[in-house]
Amino acid sequence: MKEGWKTLSQRQLLDCSPWLRVFSETVQLEDGETVVENFYRVEIPSYVVIFAVTPGQTVPLVEQYRHGVRGYTLELPAGLVEEGEDPLTSARRELREETGLVASEWRSLGAFVVDPNRGCGQAHIYLARDAVPVAAPGPGELQQVVVHYYDLERLIALWRSGGSVTIASTAAIGLGLSFLGTLPER
Amino acid sequence: MKEGWKTLSQRQLLDCSPWLRVFSETVQLEDGETVVENFYRVEIPSYVVIFAVTPGQTVPLVEQYRHGVRGYTLELPAGLVEEGEDPLTSARRELREETGLVASEWRSLGAFVVDPNRGCGQAHIYLARDAVPVAAPGPGELQQVVVHYYDLERLIALWRSGGSVTIASTAAIGLGLSFLGTLPER
Repeated sequence: MKEGWKTLSQRQLLDCSPWLRVFSETVQLEDGETVVENFYRVEIPSYVVIFAVTPGQTVPLVEQYRHGVRGYTLELPAGLVEEGEDPLTSARRELREETGLVASEWRSLGAFVVDPNRGCGQAHIYLARDAVPVAAPGPGELQQVVVHYYDLERLIALWRSGGSVTIASTAAIGLGLSFLGTLPER
Repeated sequence: MKEGWKTLSQRQLLDCSPWLRVFSETVQLEDGETVVENFYRVEIPSYVVIFAVTPGQTVPLVEQYRHGVRGYTLELPAGLVEEGEDPLTSARRELREETGLVASEWRSLGAFVVDPNRGCGQAHIYLARDAVPVAAPGPGELQQVVVHYYDLERLIALWRSGGSVTIASTAAIGLGLSFLGTLPER
């Protein structure tokens, strides 16, 4: 088992809890000698992304204004994992809040680090099958959300065009399509 | 054309250039009335991720210690876009630095926002075909890098298992496989 870096010390540079905290670390590299100062770690809440499929084989996408993009985006339903919440619980909650859907079959497709240098939280991706409406889509927290249902052909075209502009949505669409058997294994 | 939020004012909370800057914005929402304070924006350099394929249909992955994961990862070659650098140039440079490979055919698979709320830079994904070795893999900047060549079957298994643990690598493997025709379109 290889040993990695050691954190010799750290100090907090910024505390905007619960949204953001920044730390500066002094680390010792693998050689056991070299010391690097000011290696930054960013703590951002983890989030969930949900690839949901209805019995009619359509996938809900949400259209909303995203300030990090300075424009409107089409993404899979997604949201933050709240303090102390299990990610699967967050995923069920976010899917229902954003689309009004409840799914009977859930499967985790993995948890992925957002920034392998700085951290920036984890992205938990879920496949939710047999998603059926039980309520109207809720209003967004800060923005208006419009739900669009894409059939798989249209979703594949969007995905391949780079049209779902977030890296997490793009990762989740690829995995979701694969596990759905739409993109067959070799 | 819908209007989005307006940034009414912003102040810089942290300047760790060139690695990280944090701003707090006061924004006006879509309704033209509601004002939200302390919406955080994080500026992190954009990066490139390269899905390279050799003439023998293998894909190089790099194994290295990643402090944001606190462990060793297997990822596609990747690296930061340097100040003023064109992303394709960064991609060619990083592929050669990390693996010693030069590819004759490059295709952009899109640019994706890392965090649709906070920004956190963009991930530029490239497919590089006909990648052939012209040099030995270089040493990593801060860490030792080992290059592994995966055939497509093994890569698909890694991808579907969540084993390439970064969200960017996972997104790029899915898109790369699709554009390679390994995961056929419907």
